[in-house]
Amino acid sequence: MEGLWYTELQEPGVAISLETKTRLHAEQTDFQYLEVLDTKAYGRVLVLDGAIQTTVNDEFVYHEMITLVALNTHPNPENVLVVGGGDGGAIREIVKHPKVKKATLVEIDPAVINASKKYLPEISAGLNDPKAEVRIEDGIKHIADSKGKYDIIIVDSTDPVGPAVGLFEKTFYQGIFDALKDDGIFVAQTESPYLTAHLIKGVYKDVHSVFPITKLYLAYIPSYPGGMWSFTLGSKKYDPEAVDLKSIPETKTRYYTPQIHKAAFVLPVFVQELLKEALK
Amino acid sequence: MEGLWYTELQEPGVAISLETKTRLHAEQTDFQYLEVLDTKAYGRVLVLDGAIQTTVNDEFVYHEMITLVALNTHPNPENVLVVGGGDGGAIREIVKHPKVKKATLVEIDPAVINASKKYLPEISAGLNDPKAEVRIEDGIKHIADSKGKYDIIIVDSTDPVGPAVGLFEKTFYQGIFDALKDDGIFVAQTESPYLTAHLIKGVYKDVHSVFPITKLYLAYIPSYPGGMWSFTLGSKKYDPEAVDLKSIPETKTRYYTPQIHKAAFVLPVFVQELLKEALK
Repeated sequence: MEGLWYTELQEPGVAISLETKTRLHAEQTDFQYLEVLDTKAYGRVLVLDGAIQTTVNDEFVYHEMITLVALNTHPNPENVLVVGGGDGGAIREIVKHPKVKKATLVEIDPAVINASKKYLPEISAGLNDPKAEVRIEDGIKHIADSKGKYDIIIVDSTDPVGPAVGLFEKTFYQGIFDALKDDGIFVAQTESPYLTAHLIKGVYKDVHSVFPITKLYLAYIPSYPGGMWSFTLGSKKYDPEAVDLKSIPETKTRYYTPQIHKAAFVLPVFVQELLKEALK
Repeated sequence: MEGLWYTELQEPGVAISLETKTRLHAEQTDFQYLEVLDTKAYGRVLVLDGAIQTTVNDEFVYHEMITLVALNTHPNPENVLVVGGGDGGAIREIVKHPKVKKATLVEIDPAVINASKKYLPEISAGLNDPKAEVRIEDGIKHIADSKGKYDIIIVDSTDPVGPAVGLFEKTFYQGIFDALKDDGIFVAQTESPYLTAHLIKGVYKDVHSVFPITKLYLAYIPSYPGGMWSFTLGSKKYDPEAVDLKSIPETKTRYYTPQIHKAAFVLPVFVQELLKEALK
């Protein structure tokens, strides 16, 4: 293989390498090591602590799927919070939704926002929307200080190492429950069922012990380990699988459709078994 | 990264690397370079011309999905042909189906069968089933010599390079149409919508010009490039999406379910658009 390659060790024994035209930025922030690469296959890529976070070419899948399932399950998602997600992609999707009045981003690391604004304008554009408020704050503290405030809370975190460890703990999920209104919905990215089954089981069990409705759904994300990515949704009242598909507002998407909304909850046998084991 | 790593250049600019305990076998066959690796993350892996074909840990997805969708769409799949697929995984799924009377494997390269029998017994076990017939033959010639013979034909090929090039051509699809009975169904693996969109468009257009019903469906295969894998199905009579799910026989699976059968045809927007472009 000629040329310059960036290699991510994704899980023990598996690595992905992307041919890289140039590294546009590299910086040790107060929280993590941040890089922006320009790659041949995926365009510009944001990397934190050696893990690919988002790529210009496939980010639409992750950002549509982490936001639209909850937004289109809730009948009136006016006030939405994103914890993490400093690249701005989740906020971009949220502010597009016709019913959203306010989208708050709470990101602990301002360097992620600054690098995304400079190098990933397609992804970070939503941060400048009048509906968006950006707060440089510890997500755990913000959640603890918020009571009955949000319709939807989205946890758009890095992997559960470094600054994100506390975002995968049961006390945090209880805090999210308390920060939501009485019919609120919570969604978190929860890694790969193929490669990090232990993590998914733990999160599912914890969210299930806090929320009356807990469901896992899936999306295909090619730049993430294994390509199959999971999201765990906790809901106080509304079942995301019971949504009337005709009620979903038409918006321009590249991945999500009302039919995908339902199909994403149809789980392969081995994933169903993993969730059953989690509740044993 | 310490240790010994096997790297596959999957598409321009993207490579996957698997940490490898040992290489169990390597051989230049009459058709391709064949290797069997023992890897840390995926167990034993069959590699042909540097491309991962199947792994013990995730092969169930590919082999269930390339066979069961057609088998459970056809009301009476008695006589089934697999072109390629010398590892035996597709045959293993086919002979399990209660309605199948005969499963014929036509593989051009006997070395693939021999290595699979020796090193991948979990995958190749079906080749010894009384319903299975193994023929060392050119698939293109076998198809040309068969008329109105099969209920289902599955093309379980390598990537469209080397010996498999002819298995991605329109004249071959016309031959398959002629080799099927009047209500026959055809399925082929057709690579990744993220990374090989051009190939999928060409196949879809060609199959669509030959078969009255042409559909694409998807499955998550972590060891394949991008993780999202496509299968193209051509059918003379039965619509795979119109199947009565209650008619599907209960079998032990690890990925496929009747609900997955339907959900696999629900395509993200960008894949729908790719198919529309193919027919322009």
